[in-house]
Amino acid sequence: MPPDVLETLVSLCKRRGFIFQSSEIYGGTGSVWDYGPLGVELKNNVKARWWQSMVRERGDIEGLDAAILMHPKVWEASGHVSGFSDPLIDCKACKSRFRADKMDEARCPRKPSKHPGEYADCQLTEPRQFNLMFKTFMGPVEESASVVYLRPETAQGIFVNFLNVQQATRQKVPFGIAQIGKAFRNEITPGNFIFRTREFEQMEMQFFVEPGTDMEHFEAWKARRMEWHLSLGLDPSRLEFHQHAPDELAHYAKAAFDIQFDFGGTLGFQEIEGVHNRGDFDLRRHQEFSTKKLEYVDQVKNTRYLPFVIETSVGADRVTLAILANALREELVPGETEGRTVLGFHPALAPIKAGVFPLTKKDGQPEMAEKLAVDLRKKFPVFYDEAGAIGRRYRRQDEAGTPFGITIDSDSTKNDDVTIRFRDDMGQIRVSSSRVAGVIGEYLAADIPTADSRLVP
Amino acid sequence: MPPDVLETLVSLCKRRGFIFQSSEIYGGTGSVWDYGPLGVELKNNVKARWWQSMVRERGDIEGLDAAILMHPKVWEASGHVSGFSDPLIDCKACKSRFRADKMDEARCPRKPSKHPGEYADCQLTEPRQFNLMFKTFMGPVEESASVVYLRPETAQGIFVNFLNVQQATRQKVPFGIAQIGKAFRNEITPGNFIFRTREFEQMEMQFFVEPGTDMEHFEAWKARRMEWHLSLGLDPSRLEFHQHAPDELAHYAKAAFDIQFDFGGTLGFQEIEGVHNRGDFDLRRHQEFSTKKLEYVDQVKNTRYLPFVIETSVGADRVTLAILANALREELVPGETEGRTVLGFHPALAPIKAGVFPLTKKDGQPEMAEKLAVDLRKKFPVFYDEAGAIGRRYRRQDEAGTPFGITIDSDSTKNDDVTIRFRDDMGQIRVSSSRVAGVIGEYLAADIPTADSRLVP
Repeated sequence: MPPDVLETLVSLCKRRGFIFQSSEIYGGTGSVWDYGPLGVELKNNVKARWWQSMVRERGDIEGLDAAILMHPKVWEASGHVSGFSDPLIDCKACKSRFRADKMDEARCPRKPSKHPGEYADCQLTEPRQFNLMFKTFMGPVEESASVVYLRPETAQGIFVNFLNVQQATRQKVPFGIAQIGKAFRNEITPGNFIFRTREFEQMEMQFFVEPGTDMEHFEAWKARRMEWHLSLGLDPSRLEFHQHAPDELAHYAKAAFDIQFDFGGTLGFQEIEGVHNRGDFDLRRHQEFSTKKLEYVDQVKNTRYLPFVIETSVGADRVTLAILANALREELVPGETEGRTVLGFHPALAPIKAGVFPLTKKDGQPEMAEKLAVDLRKKFPVFYDEAGAIGRRYRRQDEAGTPFGITIDSDSTKNDDVTIRFRDDMGQIRVSSSRVAGVIGEYLAADIPTADSRLVP
Repeated sequence: MPPDVLETLVSLCKRRGFIFQSSEIYGGTGSVWDYGPLGVELKNNVKARWWQSMVRERGDIEGLDAAILMHPKVWEASGHVSGFSDPLIDCKACKSRFRADKMDEARCPRKPSKHPGEYADCQLTEPRQFNLMFKTFMGPVEESASVVYLRPETAQGIFVNFLNVQQATRQKVPFGIAQIGKAFRNEITPGNFIFRTREFEQMEMQFFVEPGTDMEHFEAWKARRMEWHLSLGLDPSRLEFHQHAPDELAHYAKAAFDIQFDFGGTLGFQEIEGVHNRGDFDLRRHQEFSTKKLEYVDQVKNTRYLPFVIETSVGADRVTLAILANALREELVPGETEGRTVLGFHPALAPIKAGVFPLTKKDGQPEMAEKLAVDLRKKFPVFYDEAGAIGRRYRRQDEAGTPFGITIDSDSTKNDDVTIRFRDDMGQIRVSSSRVAGVIGEYLAADIPTADSRLVP
């Protein structure tokens, strides 16, 4: 990847409808992004895959969808009201506000000096803590009694529902609760496209275990979560673990590893998932602040205790960005002068599974192609395109990451055979139109997007 | 349905893990609810079904997932800053606040009078407008320049992205953009469980059409949307259209129909979806406020215009509540003294598709049953249960709305046959364990949850 991989992606994502700047016609909203037609399918595929592997295929993890607005005491118990803050410095002269740890790189916005870190006419205060939670008011009166926060993480929705879920489902420890949802952080320095944004989506799972067994579960989840990222087709050489040193550990964490992905360019290796041993910090705090017993009763061993929690926390937007960066390639096509841009997505993640193309706009080809597209759409997302040269239509779908192209030509309307063209190796096979859904279905199930495979009929 | 249908549902939903009060251990958050393990699957099934029919099966509707935080000018253009408000009356003596249109039913909370509508010691102000949008601040400074709102509807995310989507996808009018997402309204009088909440989820589609063709599209969408609700298994006699009279029409609407569902009890018929002809109100306002041209260029007719918009707007939580109310029944079981509670969900919507039950905990039955559960979970959600009498286990799944029960008995471990029991008619069939996935798959595809059907092998 070239160093400007993010710039390339921002531009490609806008042009092809993966991701747009939020409220772009009004000049944009700072570090907030909208997912377009291809982006929403890509991200939904990521979320569905996570849900399938974490909830639906397991008997010991339950799903949850807790609300964004929670009781304000939740954030006192979690430590976010007192501890989730950045130090800021105000200027009494120009009314600007700076991050204390970035003063060396900034300058006064009203009277900019030549060099960063110089604030000649500024009257700077001592650093003060600025809380990163978005604050709002519930009910008609804007007063402290009605303050609520947009949740800065989904995890607390799981902790406060721990006993409700356990009792409704009769799960026994060890078991987990999983959730996908939006969270909000009023970051002072967001950036890097959808990597660090003020509004983002998390996929979190908290696994409740008996104290003393926590480190073995921690190691097992580390391994499982790395397996999951590999199953998305992310390049193994671009994935690594990063262990938090003792001075990096969050206040709640006994042990923590990040799974990092190499985004390339100046961004390099960055966290896309965290695996944490939170001990019983959260349940203990909520028990204290709510004065409700949150102990698990083990009826076999006849004991009761606060379980320890192994947490796996993925940024859905970050994984989506990793998948985009991993998939992007520009390559020469043998025998052609122009190169092509390809998003080589894992077929299961591709927003569109197949393009359907009549070779020409006459002789019944569009009608046959449209009928095929309507049939296929019952099974998977399909894009119908009859505009322009066929080579150009292929290239457009290469750039959208569509793994299969189906072309209807003058023979097709006679003998009912169509061509399936493969995105990655550009190989082609010829099959009966009635078998297209089945053949592509087999390729999708097998995650094989090339023609030279055992599946070629 | 008895008049206390909502009370019955609130209690059942908590007990079985469909829906919990948000932050319950802290006394709850006003009119905010969390979806538990069964609720999140049910609601996800509703959303997936809407997305399948509105986006994936159509070539003329594109998906979108715009952010909750948008540029504040969006809400000036949409009319929400000036017009989205309720009139409130303050009391200067007791500092209470009342909805002006509900004064007849309320009383002073500090010194309650015997009769509502009497405010002996109150000093009431004139009514003032209170905006229903949740306000927050982006960036570190809480000042007017940094005010942003939580979106009160998803629609505006579609309007501001209209040209971005059209250009990226090369769609031609008529075409639509569809979106599922959270919205927030600081309601003064929320209530009725998940019917009117401060945080809720919408499934909205805006269909852009040529002016003059709008009423024919409006009629077509009215019919299609009613069909969709019927496809969920909602009782036709509990669904009806309600036309907005001229004095009911919103400021943006040329014509509007609600689709109402009869929730029973005191709630009765209530809106679950709105179909609106919004004309070009929204695009015109955004064009004016952003000073960006938002016209669609028709290259065939060589014209340019602001399209009219036909909107279909469903409350995901309201449809989910309708599905719960529609499914709930208490019935006598022939030959038994105790009745049973059933959630007779359409099989495609049921959170769990099959329960798997070893008849006893010995003779290899649990092992065979667990192995079957693991296999089936790759296809659909399955609940494994070995605790208690088999009749009680069936009843638990009836109450969870699980359409199929699979029982492994002492014969099963010898001849590999298992029993499939049907939730609705309690009929039973016997099939080989290797065929269970296929047989249930056929029933699911055909939406038939009774034994006496053409599918019985």
